[in-house]
Amino acid sequence: MFKVLITTVPFGDKNRYPLDLLEENNVEYLVNPINKKLTECELVDMVADFDVIIAGTEPITKKVMDGATNLKMISRVGIGLDSVDLIEAEKKRITVSYTPDAPAPAVSELTIGMMLTLLRSVHVSNSQMHLGHWHRFFGRRLSEVVIGIIGVGRIGQGVVKHLQGFGCPKILANDLSSKQNSGKDTNIEWTSKVDIYKRADIISLHLPLTVETRNMIRESHLLSMKSDAIIINTSRGGIINEDDLYKVMQSGHLSGAAIDVFDNEPYEGDLNKIERCLLTAHMGSMSVDCRTRMEIEATEEVVRFITGKTLNGLVPEEEYEVQRQGL
Amino acid sequence: MFKVLITTVPFGDKNRYPLDLLEENNVEYLVNPINKKLTECELVDMVADFDVIIAGTEPITKKVMDGATNLKMISRVGIGLDSVDLIEAEKKRITVSYTPDAPAPAVSELTIGMMLTLLRSVHVSNSQMHLGHWHRFFGRRLSEVVIGIIGVGRIGQGVVKHLQGFGCPKILANDLSSKQNSGKDTNIEWTSKVDIYKRADIISLHLPLTVETRNMIRESHLLSMKSDAIIINTSRGGIINEDDLYKVMQSGHLSGAAIDVFDNEPYEGDLNKIERCLLTAHMGSMSVDCRTRMEIEATEEVVRFITGKTLNGLVPEEEYEVQRQGL
Repeated sequence: MFKVLITTVPFGDKNRYPLDLLEENNVEYLVNPINKKLTECELVDMVADFDVIIAGTEPITKKVMDGATNLKMISRVGIGLDSVDLIEAEKKRITVSYTPDAPAPAVSELTIGMMLTLLRSVHVSNSQMHLGHWHRFFGRRLSEVVIGIIGVGRIGQGVVKHLQGFGCPKILANDLSSKQNSGKDTNIEWTSKVDIYKRADIISLHLPLTVETRNMIRESHLLSMKSDAIIINTSRGGIINEDDLYKVMQSGHLSGAAIDVFDNEPYEGDLNKIERCLLTAHMGSMSVDCRTRMEIEATEEVVRFITGKTLNGLVPEEEYEVQRQGL
Repeated sequence: MFKVLITTVPFGDKNRYPLDLLEENNVEYLVNPINKKLTECELVDMVADFDVIIAGTEPITKKVMDGATNLKMISRVGIGLDSVDLIEAEKKRITVSYTPDAPAPAVSELTIGMMLTLLRSVHVSNSQMHLGHWHRFFGRRLSEVVIGIIGVGRIGQGVVKHLQGFGCPKILANDLSSKQNSGKDTNIEWTSKVDIYKRADIISLHLPLTVETRNMIRESHLLSMKSDAIIINTSRGGIINEDDLYKVMQSGHLSGAAIDVFDNEPYEGDLNKIERCLLTAHMGSMSVDCRTRMEIEATEEVVRFITGKTLNGLVPEEEYEVQRQGL
């Protein structure tokens, strides 16, 4: 009997189908009993005799895999692979699959909501109203500002699509892939990150966490942005250096930030001292439909794996290549 | 020399042009020195010898007009006319103009931001994160829910337009004007308010405050909505009964509400005790571009009036008719 450890939580919460599917296929499973993102040590303690991990973003390192002698497959619920040591998995012939398309619609919608919230100081007004203070904040409209999108993959493209409905005249864009950077969309001006930092009123990140993007935005980059710029990160913690963001915002620079992802989650840092910093608990993909689709896809992949069928979501070679360059 | 009282605040704050325009035309003006929405009594005390009021939403009643013996014109910065006794103005031959188009783009954008915020519990997560609590809320996407728009004039139409970019399959709509209700947009299902209350996941109000809409939504209507419905009011306070909304939300009904407008402003009521109630300080029109356009249009109208030119924004007969039916 196959044994599956489901580390990501919540799981099967809004839709039991993934759990039913495992049961129908005679799989024994355990859902993360700690009910929060596991540390490396907690995962080592838990993973010993499991064949498969249905994984969230907890660190699946060499140490974890060394302790998981039966492990044959990791099925990531989501897109980012920074949490999985792909090189080690390859060495140990552990199959890694993921669900790269499923989260995108939820993340791109959340991003637009954050843009509108920050542009109009809705979050600040809401905090103040709940304290009994009335102040009418001035704001800006999407069509009146320069929007810069860094990372124009599945999610970044979704953001650009939604923005069309707001009549945004031009969007600055940059992508790690030079292929994307030469796209011919007339609404998009492809430019450098440095140029986006300088010219954009809203800067939104839709990037994987890699050796290239870790600490990509530090104090000097933040200070090169307009004093009333807005920065949004719904991709991965670590891309904007959190200490630098705190320091720069504390000094009064930037009119707002929306941060959904953190170096360490659950987040316990200082950004919560800054009222104009909109903070959410890694909720980018947490729409019922997208989350359900992610869980079902990841579970179906496990069932395909254990029944010897062709896999749908095998992590492509490029992702291994990224990690070979060092993380 | 014409004397103009500017009651709405802020005014000329982001763009001095309206004040410059008055000065160029040799107009003496006073900007509301109390710097908040005036009560009827405060306005009576202030208005005595002014020829024109450039008005916000403060009550311009018979009592105010009785005390303003020189008053010849009211130029409303904005669209709603519930605050102006049009019948009394007509009797006293006081000209009333307004700027009905200028606020719409800002209000419709804010409404989309509120929809996305409420659907994903961004405001609740932000409050909790600022208190150091991490909880990943489930949410829904715009294309997965039934949206009901009540009031499909300038602002409601803008909301519908923005929603197109999110792939919303169908929008329920209702308008006070039966002309609108027969529109042929295939994306819109025209239906009764009662049907919208029952079927919609998001109900957004874009209505004037009239005898017909005051207390339009009371406890029974709120309770007829889905238990996880969301209600948004960026139009006028008084349309949703505030006490009833508080009572119903306190009981756990409705998954969220966004309220930008209140019976009495600055708002001092109990809704701030409800975390999932997103509160803002009448900021619908407060984007720099729209607010500037409103102020400029209202001021240019005053200059046209005092220089004997044809007016652009005269309040139409229908608005007087609405008030003749009683407010």
